[in-house]
Amino acid sequence: MRVVDLIRKKRDSGEHSREEIAYLVAGYTKGEIPDYQMAAWLMAVWIRGLTRAETIALTEMMLYSGEIVDHFDIPVKKVDKHSTGGVGDKTSLILAPIVAAGGLAVPMISGRGLGHTGGTLDKLEAIPGFNTALSLSDFRRIVKECGLGLIGQTSEIAPADKKIYALRDATSTVENIGLICASIMSKKLAEGIDALVLDVKTGSGAFMAEQEDAVRLAEIMVDTTRRMGKKCVALLTDMDQPLGRMAGHSNEVIEAIEVLKGHGPEDLRELSIELSAWMFYLGERTTSVEEGRRLAEDLIASGEALGRLRRCIRLQGGDARIVDDPSLMPTAKHHADVVSPHSGYISATHCRDFGIALAILEGGRSKKEDVIDPAVGLEFHKRIGDRVAAGEKLVTIQYNSETRLAEASKLIEDSFVFADHQPLMPPLIRQVIGG
Amino acid sequence: MRVVDLIRKKRDSGEHSREEIAYLVAGYTKGEIPDYQMAAWLMAVWIRGLTRAETIALTEMMLYSGEIVDHFDIPVKKVDKHSTGGVGDKTSLILAPIVAAGGLAVPMISGRGLGHTGGTLDKLEAIPGFNTALSLSDFRRIVKECGLGLIGQTSEIAPADKKIYALRDATSTVENIGLICASIMSKKLAEGIDALVLDVKTGSGAFMAEQEDAVRLAEIMVDTTRRMGKKCVALLTDMDQPLGRMAGHSNEVIEAIEVLKGHGPEDLRELSIELSAWMFYLGERTTSVEEGRRLAEDLIASGEALGRLRRCIRLQGGDARIVDDPSLMPTAKHHADVVSPHSGYISATHCRDFGIALAILEGGRSKKEDVIDPAVGLEFHKRIGDRVAAGEKLVTIQYNSETRLAEASKLIEDSFVFADHQPLMPPLIRQVIGG
Repeated sequence: MRVVDLIRKKRDSGEHSREEIAYLVAGYTKGEIPDYQMAAWLMAVWIRGLTRAETIALTEMMLYSGEIVDHFDIPVKKVDKHSTGGVGDKTSLILAPIVAAGGLAVPMISGRGLGHTGGTLDKLEAIPGFNTALSLSDFRRIVKECGLGLIGQTSEIAPADKKIYALRDATSTVENIGLICASIMSKKLAEGIDALVLDVKTGSGAFMAEQEDAVRLAEIMVDTTRRMGKKCVALLTDMDQPLGRMAGHSNEVIEAIEVLKGHGPEDLRELSIELSAWMFYLGERTTSVEEGRRLAEDLIASGEALGRLRRCIRLQGGDARIVDDPSLMPTAKHHADVVSPHSGYISATHCRDFGIALAILEGGRSKKEDVIDPAVGLEFHKRIGDRVAAGEKLVTIQYNSETRLAEASKLIEDSFVFADHQPLMPPLIRQVIGG
Repeated sequence: MRVVDLIRKKRDSGEHSREEIAYLVAGYTKGEIPDYQMAAWLMAVWIRGLTRAETIALTEMMLYSGEIVDHFDIPVKKVDKHSTGGVGDKTSLILAPIVAAGGLAVPMISGRGLGHTGGTLDKLEAIPGFNTALSLSDFRRIVKECGLGLIGQTSEIAPADKKIYALRDATSTVENIGLICASIMSKKLAEGIDALVLDVKTGSGAFMAEQEDAVRLAEIMVDTTRRMGKKCVALLTDMDQPLGRMAGHSNEVIEAIEVLKGHGPEDLRELSIELSAWMFYLGERTTSVEEGRRLAEDLIASGEALGRLRRCIRLQGGDARIVDDPSLMPTAKHHADVVSPHSGYISATHCRDFGIALAILEGGRSKKEDVIDPAVGLEFHKRIGDRVAAGEKLVTIQYNSETRLAEASKLIEDSFVFADHQPLMPPLIRQVIGG
């Protein structure tokens, strides 16, 4: 097998065999195939696409390039959720303790935020002392002990993905459904789970803005996961506006805890319960999704889910007192309000720009190397469908550095779209794929 | 300007500005843009294509990456010919002395053979002592002194092409019309010529087998050359069978000399005179192509063209006695005949395979590093349209090593296509583009 022939095949819209995909992934991971050949192949893949069979093979080969965590001494089903990312999406912090409290195990390996989207790992690190850099053996031990563990990617997990992703980033070959699927799934399936619930975002703040693209991605991810013997469904959910009222790091942890206390914004609560319910159902803890919903609500009402989060924070080295005293979380020095320039109904938002404004204020990453200020955040006072008067508060910015405040404020103000009549409200959960 | 954005632009079928092309070529040549980014861009270019304007800009930037030979002290017009390559194509060895004898200057920088095609440089080096590795200043001096000089590429000429070509070769991004045009033209225009005649081959032994592709390549090469202020036409010529009776190195030099002596095969003589005639016309030595033909014929008949070749060989260190005594050229130790397996008319040939058979016998290069045996060659006894009897000689193989003789013989035998009726004869010169 020669790499130039494989590049030519994909260039000419051919379909690779499993053996060919295996050769490419193993050769590149070991350093036998140089970056420039892989780059040419990735561009050919970006333009010509990958078939279902190729996507599955690529996912598997990338998965097998590294270690797969085994939890053979944990007798319950292992389940997880993966979101394609957006603004204000903190459901992981809520559903992981709910599902663990319900008796399943949630071995969650998360990523960091980049660009307009936040990452669970960064949010956890806003909790003083919380250690996300556990070894795989400590991770296993904590999952066994409290039913959930929350760590970042280690070098043992899918090293092929790490290397290929860095190359995609430098060669404008990121946004391809097959490559995205393989990258996500090779890491998620390394968690050693039995079932996976996907939260595929669509709308102005989603990675896949167009619903059609989001559906395609959801379908191929569900298909790939199932062909690898795992249960899977995907919920297609709204990201035309931020989820909940808070975006940032410290403030999202606090809002997640609010939901676990039975409060918090309705959309965030609804989606967290819905995702938990599917996890219970796929993890065979309940015999229906409806039963899963009731279980999730009960575990919130009883305080058990909150208690489980407290235990997890303590086990991972964090200050569990933040659960009861949010003032122990990092707090920004200054507040500034963005007020409405118009009177009327909010009909839409450029949701992605809220995330970018956050990164401008150092509450997110423009590039991978950026350091995040966890105290920086946005509080949203209005949602799509709300009527506002000119001069009324839309967003409160929590910030520490004045440097780029004006730029961020302007971006936030411009991200609201107004109309004279009340708009149709976008449904939060648009579709269940594979349900 | 960021390279990732330029890659993305081409990936999404955008058109680059001259500034963007300049940034890419200069950055890559200087080593500021890494191979992997250039590889991704080249694949995007291969699939999405280059517009005329992009092709012209790329050609110019690659040309300006190196030195352009100046012949300001040579008062006559400088002209050259470039062929896209084939089997048995030795017209350069004939037309360069004809055109120099006619009073124009031919500063010819040639390439080596690879795969099934031969290269002028390799053929010249079959002449004992002939030095093709002159410095640019020696090259200039010899062109001034005898009207022609025949050298290979130097490191000063279009270094961008050298680097980009190597990358294309390793990333399956060679066969793209815009990239081919830029690669050829950036080197040819570095010769400092006023006019260029292109011999674009089409047929089973050509790089562009399909006539439609050959026409497209010819058109864009003519257009690019003209937009850079040079006169240019392209002749679309037949490569459905070898040109002349000989293919190899030593034997092609001998056959070229035969034509300069007024003998030699008709097709080779006709094409050499036609190309010379266009060079005379574009170089303003004659006021018509017809007058150019008569001049070329006169220069052969008078022995002046042959004399000019003698002088050039001597000036470049070669043994000029070979012109009068071909036995001084390298000769193969053994001969073997390939005979016809059928009776009937030869209706076509897989011409490319003759070149590959030659390379198998070490009379050509399978890979760039291969060393050529100049004595190895093929003599063709039959042409398309000839009637042959079973057992009649088709080809005589001149060889030194028996190792792969059987393989080469089989390939040659299988390269003839037979029919019961006399086929239509392909015209030698199919079309003049830009005439």
